[in-house]
Amino acid sequence: MDHKRPRFPDQDIVLVVRNPHRAGSLGKLLSVIGDVGALVGDLTTRSVSPYHSIREITVSVYDDDHLVQVLSAIRAQTQAEVLETCDLVIARHQGGKIHCGRKQDIKLLSDLRYIYTPGVARVCRAIQRDPLKALELTGIGNSVGIFTNGTRVLGLGDIGPLAGMPVMEGKAVIYDQFVGISAVPILVDTKDPSEFIDTVVRVAPTFGGIHLEDIRMPDCFRIEDELIRRLDKPVMHDDQHGTATVLLAAVLSALRHTNRDGRRDMICAQIGLGAAGFGIAKLLLSAGFKVIGVDRNEQACARMENVGGDIASLEDAMANADIVIATTGVVGLIKPEMIRKGQIILSLSNPIPEIFPEEALDAGAAYAADGKSVNNALAYPGLFRAALDGRRKAITPAMKIAAARAISALAGPDELVPSPLHPDVHSAVIAAATEAFKKEDAKK
Amino acid sequence: MDHKRPRFPDQDIVLVVRNPHRAGSLGKLLSVIGDVGALVGDLTTRSVSPYHSIREITVSVYDDDHLVQVLSAIRAQTQAEVLETCDLVIARHQGGKIHCGRKQDIKLLSDLRYIYTPGVARVCRAIQRDPLKALELTGIGNSVGIFTNGTRVLGLGDIGPLAGMPVMEGKAVIYDQFVGISAVPILVDTKDPSEFIDTVVRVAPTFGGIHLEDIRMPDCFRIEDELIRRLDKPVMHDDQHGTATVLLAAVLSALRHTNRDGRRDMICAQIGLGAAGFGIAKLLLSAGFKVIGVDRNEQACARMENVGGDIASLEDAMANADIVIATTGVVGLIKPEMIRKGQIILSLSNPIPEIFPEEALDAGAAYAADGKSVNNALAYPGLFRAALDGRRKAITPAMKIAAARAISALAGPDELVPSPLHPDVHSAVIAAATEAFKKEDAKK
Repeated sequence: MDHKRPRFPDQDIVLVVRNPHRAGSLGKLLSVIGDVGALVGDLTTRSVSPYHSIREITVSVYDDDHLVQVLSAIRAQTQAEVLETCDLVIARHQGGKIHCGRKQDIKLLSDLRYIYTPGVARVCRAIQRDPLKALELTGIGNSVGIFTNGTRVLGLGDIGPLAGMPVMEGKAVIYDQFVGISAVPILVDTKDPSEFIDTVVRVAPTFGGIHLEDIRMPDCFRIEDELIRRLDKPVMHDDQHGTATVLLAAVLSALRHTNRDGRRDMICAQIGLGAAGFGIAKLLLSAGFKVIGVDRNEQACARMENVGGDIASLEDAMANADIVIATTGVVGLIKPEMIRKGQIILSLSNPIPEIFPEEALDAGAAYAADGKSVNNALAYPGLFRAALDGRRKAITPAMKIAAARAISALAGPDELVPSPLHPDVHSAVIAAATEAFKKEDAKK
Repeated sequence: MDHKRPRFPDQDIVLVVRNPHRAGSLGKLLSVIGDVGALVGDLTTRSVSPYHSIREITVSVYDDDHLVQVLSAIRAQTQAEVLETCDLVIARHQGGKIHCGRKQDIKLLSDLRYIYTPGVARVCRAIQRDPLKALELTGIGNSVGIFTNGTRVLGLGDIGPLAGMPVMEGKAVIYDQFVGISAVPILVDTKDPSEFIDTVVRVAPTFGGIHLEDIRMPDCFRIEDELIRRLDKPVMHDDQHGTATVLLAAVLSALRHTNRDGRRDMICAQIGLGAAGFGIAKLLLSAGFKVIGVDRNEQACARMENVGGDIASLEDAMANADIVIATTGVVGLIKPEMIRKGQIILSLSNPIPEIFPEEALDAGAAYAADGKSVNNALAYPGLFRAALDGRRKAITPAMKIAAARAISALAGPDELVPSPLHPDVHSAVIAAATEAFKKEDAKK
């Protein structure tokens, strides 16, 4: 297998093509596109004349070089002319993906007097007398600030806060559509954890919850810990806990799919103890699994032992684990010969995993999957919705475990987790997390 | 005149009233309400039975005590029963006035792949290569952050950032409805100007423009100056410059209404050199007027002299000025005997001015108005829209003066400024400010 490219081309481009309008010319064009390894998706006819047709053809390519290859092949081997190309991802980002807007219109001057001066003064005084009123009379109780300094964005590394904005806006779109939370990205232009913490603390009154995103290791741990300590509102680093929640759901599903439902005597190997890996390991431990951690970084291993996990070499971990979870970003790290018969292999690195699922299955794994379906969008919206509605001061492990169970329960027979577009998944997460904190309260 | 209360009751309450359904009972009820000094507004019939009617009656009262008085009078003197009272201002604030939401729906998994991972990574890289792309591919270029520490909110003083939120949300509603800007309130929990500045600088990459609001003197001056110096994007303290722009518009209208259109040889007295007063004085100077400042605070006077204005006592300023502008918050400060015949008197303090316009006119003023119509919402939305669209690094005096002219030009014969709901005023401000910076560019 080609370990340098993802398995499928996934950069979708619309080609606007003028083609001679005669039998066979479209088939020829699509064949030429296919011959250079691009996939054809939607096809829409814009116009047809006796001589030509103009069509929009969506093709998926690996990258920009591959697109150049496709265009050259069309030019050299067909009579078609590409009039325009439109990158669907770039098109969807024009002007940004979010907007902070009004919930009511100002139609009359009296509206302005109600929502602005002089009326608003009375609302200010009400909040001054009783700060809790702010949750009712402003949008704060329905809002989450998404804070990043852009030091570890997706698989891209330290690209800075500005270049991280499209990810933050994507998170905000998901918050709004799936659970109706008003989420505001905040780019924090500092790499210094203390400055980052101080900045978040100072603007924290603006928001009901604090979502931390795409912050490098080990800063993310200190930042989260200190913000949890200093703020009396829910704080969650999504790369750790959102990922961990969805991953725990995937593990529960994999156990079910291999008829080991409910078994907690399984040994999990967590390969890679970065933000995501450490978060996963901690949540697996909270959920009652035995966990072996693998990482070359000593600090990461110490952190793991600190929370009650074991440490082993990659080989030993692979030899002993029933469930292997890899989040290293190292393509091809897991060799087929390391796989033990009957293992569950979740190799999650994107876009290219530590071992392709087919390779793992060929090598004897009972179940194997990559990270494509493991989408944080399944967990964080519902967790924060539950926390805001319940006016919680924290998102606890019990809430995450309950959310993971709810997510896993909705996975189909061929799925580790449902789609984030599943009509019930977010309300199920909200209900499960809410029930979990109510149980915790009852125990107190 | 009663100098403790505003001239008219302006707290609107809906009373839901069950009244005997017979001739004369409604008239009696409304008379009783009127007898205790409350005004009756809208009246809607909810239901009528042979015995009773249930109606929603909007009454305007001065304050909560006055409402209690109204309710007691109804109870004592009529057979009506008040079933419910609803404060219209509070009702309009339930759940807050703004929401940060998506501009497009996620309908298919491919939508998620375009706006979130994996597609979004390509957009991040494009911005990393060329940071200016962020203006095109994120919402940053259409956004303004509204920053406050709540140390001087409206006439309420230092009520803190949380209690200031309703004002910030009101500003954001206005930005959205009038000019389509995505405005995000940011509450900054510090009274230390250096900390405030550092916080704004750190999160500034999130926004295309920085709107400062409701920050006490003299901190607001230092904060604005330093942010303008440190950031390469438009920064404006609305309490100074938004107010000044609208006030300059009012002055231009008052000159027109008294047939002194276009005259710049007029002497303006600016009474009160707080944030608003100082901003007004500076802009009047920029517009070519001679300005005398009045303030008991020595620092404020020094600041005024620093920008080329004169300082005088209240009495001397009143004796010499053609145009008097008062922004002191001191009820009744201007005595009728201080008014010179033919003066223009703009006594702007809210809710109760330094002198009521009727008093000023009786004392010989050629023109007099209070601050009710002087609404910042006329200026800041268009100024920021022009600055964002033009990718300006500052909002200059020339832009503000041009905006003031445009606002004044739309004022009717009985108005100082048009309503902020005037259908053309915001586009006129945008066009005027844009033309102004183009002229400035051409001169360079």
